[in-house]
Amino acid sequence: MTFSAALRTLHDTAVAERVGERTASRLNDVRVFVAHEMLEVEALIARHTNGRSNGSGVAGVPPATHAARHLSDAGGKRVRPMALLLAAACFGPIDVRARELAAAAELVHMATLLHDDVVDDGDQRRGRPTSRRVWGNAVSVLAGDLLLVEALRLAAHAHAETWTELIDTLGLLVDGEVVQLRGRLAVSLEESTYFEIVRGKTASLFAWALRAGARQGGGSRTAIDALGAFGDHLGVAFQLVDDVLDYAGDANMTGKTVFADLLEGKMTLPLLRAAAMDATLPPLIARVRDGDVDTAVHIAARVRALGACDATRDMARSETAAALVRLEAVPSCAARDVLADVARDLVARIC
Amino acid sequence: MTFSAALRTLHDTAVAERVGERTASRLNDVRVFVAHEMLEVEALIARHTNGRSNGSGVAGVPPATHAARHLSDAGGKRVRPMALLLAAACFGPIDVRARELAAAAELVHMATLLHDDVVDDGDQRRGRPTSRRVWGNAVSVLAGDLLLVEALRLAAHAHAETWTELIDTLGLLVDGEVVQLRGRLAVSLEESTYFEIVRGKTASLFAWALRAGARQGGGSRTAIDALGAFGDHLGVAFQLVDDVLDYAGDANMTGKTVFADLLEGKMTLPLLRAAAMDATLPPLIARVRDGDVDTAVHIAARVRALGACDATRDMARSETAAALVRLEAVPSCAARDVLADVARDLVARIC
Repeated sequence: MTFSAALRTLHDTAVAERVGERTASRLNDVRVFVAHEMLEVEALIARHTNGRSNGSGVAGVPPATHAARHLSDAGGKRVRPMALLLAAACFGPIDVRARELAAAAELVHMATLLHDDVVDDGDQRRGRPTSRRVWGNAVSVLAGDLLLVEALRLAAHAHAETWTELIDTLGLLVDGEVVQLRGRLAVSLEESTYFEIVRGKTASLFAWALRAGARQGGGSRTAIDALGAFGDHLGVAFQLVDDVLDYAGDANMTGKTVFADLLEGKMTLPLLRAAAMDATLPPLIARVRDGDVDTAVHIAARVRALGACDATRDMARSETAAALVRLEAVPSCAARDVLADVARDLVARIC
Repeated sequence: MTFSAALRTLHDTAVAERVGERTASRLNDVRVFVAHEMLEVEALIARHTNGRSNGSGVAGVPPATHAARHLSDAGGKRVRPMALLLAAACFGPIDVRARELAAAAELVHMATLLHDDVVDDGDQRRGRPTSRRVWGNAVSVLAGDLLLVEALRLAAHAHAETWTELIDTLGLLVDGEVVQLRGRLAVSLEESTYFEIVRGKTASLFAWALRAGARQGGGSRTAIDALGAFGDHLGVAFQLVDDVLDYAGDANMTGKTVFADLLEGKMTLPLLRAAAMDATLPPLIARVRDGDVDTAVHIAARVRALGACDATRDMARSETAAALVRLEAVPSCAARDVLADVARDLVARIC
């Protein structure tokens, strides 16, 4: 598969309807609040997925890996950059550095998605075939590397602590993936291990985004820590809901393959809870990994019937409540209220 | 494939004989010159492939991805860190920052090897099966990501310019891989494109290592630029010789699969030169990519018979000569003399 063929495929593909525009209503309010800044963040994301920003690219390289654009064009909720901008807005105007960091947060997220699709052998993402499915593992690995480099470039002028924390966060993201990979094909998993994975692969980047925004906006040490803790809880809640939607969601709404986690051998909380309640499930789970889709449908029905999705959503609500408590340490302002709305809406989302 | 199984496999494998110890003799002189410092660099490499250096790892993660250790245990010539230390030694004592940067240079190199093996579907590296062959693509992708993060961590305290140049260099490395991937399966390739690939995927990191070392040692702007240019030429020469060895080398000596480039669809200079001289070759090259090893043996014999290996080695000698000219801008000292020896020996190496 060559890059020029990939380019043609992309050109032949209508730009996908943005999944983000179908998410819970108040995310749209957030977009209005930071609409102008998000336009600039989108432009930065486009520029950094579309070509070398410093003009030093090797002649003949297309200005982007099209895999990166593929993912970018498919949209996404842009939760991380929006949260980063709002954290900055709690303390002052959103400056160019904050917008660069917001774009960096999304690029890091996109880089992990590209590498995850290779790691997971994933077939669908954001309602479209994954990049690795379209162009193969090679392109996904390199596109992920490219996005990571561009994220580092965008964050290069930030505060030294923001920089150091980004490197640490990248380490935590990889750790989360490694633990998840080790847990695959296991028919049991400790709930504590599940939460380690969630903290590593999701909450760490949320926490970084909130801290980076707060620091860039000029927040106090206390406020930075509070917003970081808010981001950590928000990230856990977000992932819990994501994992519920894999069993209870509508594929047309989420843009993902329903039961993808189950089919990929990922033991998420709804499944862990259900398996703890019904001893007939573990042997069935092992069978699904041989590609038995009928069994997957049966297991998912059991997961829902046993109340495991509801229980997981309850945990997400607890995390959201904990997040909102941490917000109280941040001076009252419109941006803080919008952040609170984001937290409430993400946990209630159905896609 | 799980990490615990990977661990067992590693334990069952005797530590491979170090390929580096079979390289040209004067590399051993270099080792003596910077022996003490290289021991510390090796310890840093081991620590950063063996576990999270900052102790913030998620509980339950094995302290390393074993894939990284697998690659590290297989040795390597360590040319990049040695060259970095020597560049620093041209101006003063080798401090802890220089040693950290030297380890970072090797970790970046190792990270690209791990990702390249996925991109290239490579089967053998440094005389052993590749990590992706042993543990699969997932582990190689994550291990590469982990090493990259550790390299960034090690370089985090360097001069701001060294840091910025590292990010740019990472971009160039990916660019080089992207151009190479686009060129795969093409039966023709412009020589200029070949050199773009070599500059991106090899020379850029050599140049960074030399510049970083010179800056850390306290070299003048002129000296930093001169050593960077030296590194650039040295990197090109190094890659040219590597590409010759794929056709002319002894697999038992190089630790690589001979004809790997040909079988992976990589058009390197020996092949480009030979194809330009013999019109019967291009259709044969296309056939090799279907896995026809007999044809590969025939093509390699033609490449040698047509003098394409000798011509490529001549070009490597020219690059080395250009490198040595740039060294003249560096004040005369023992370290500079050793760097000159390294340049001469790398081009003469047979493995």
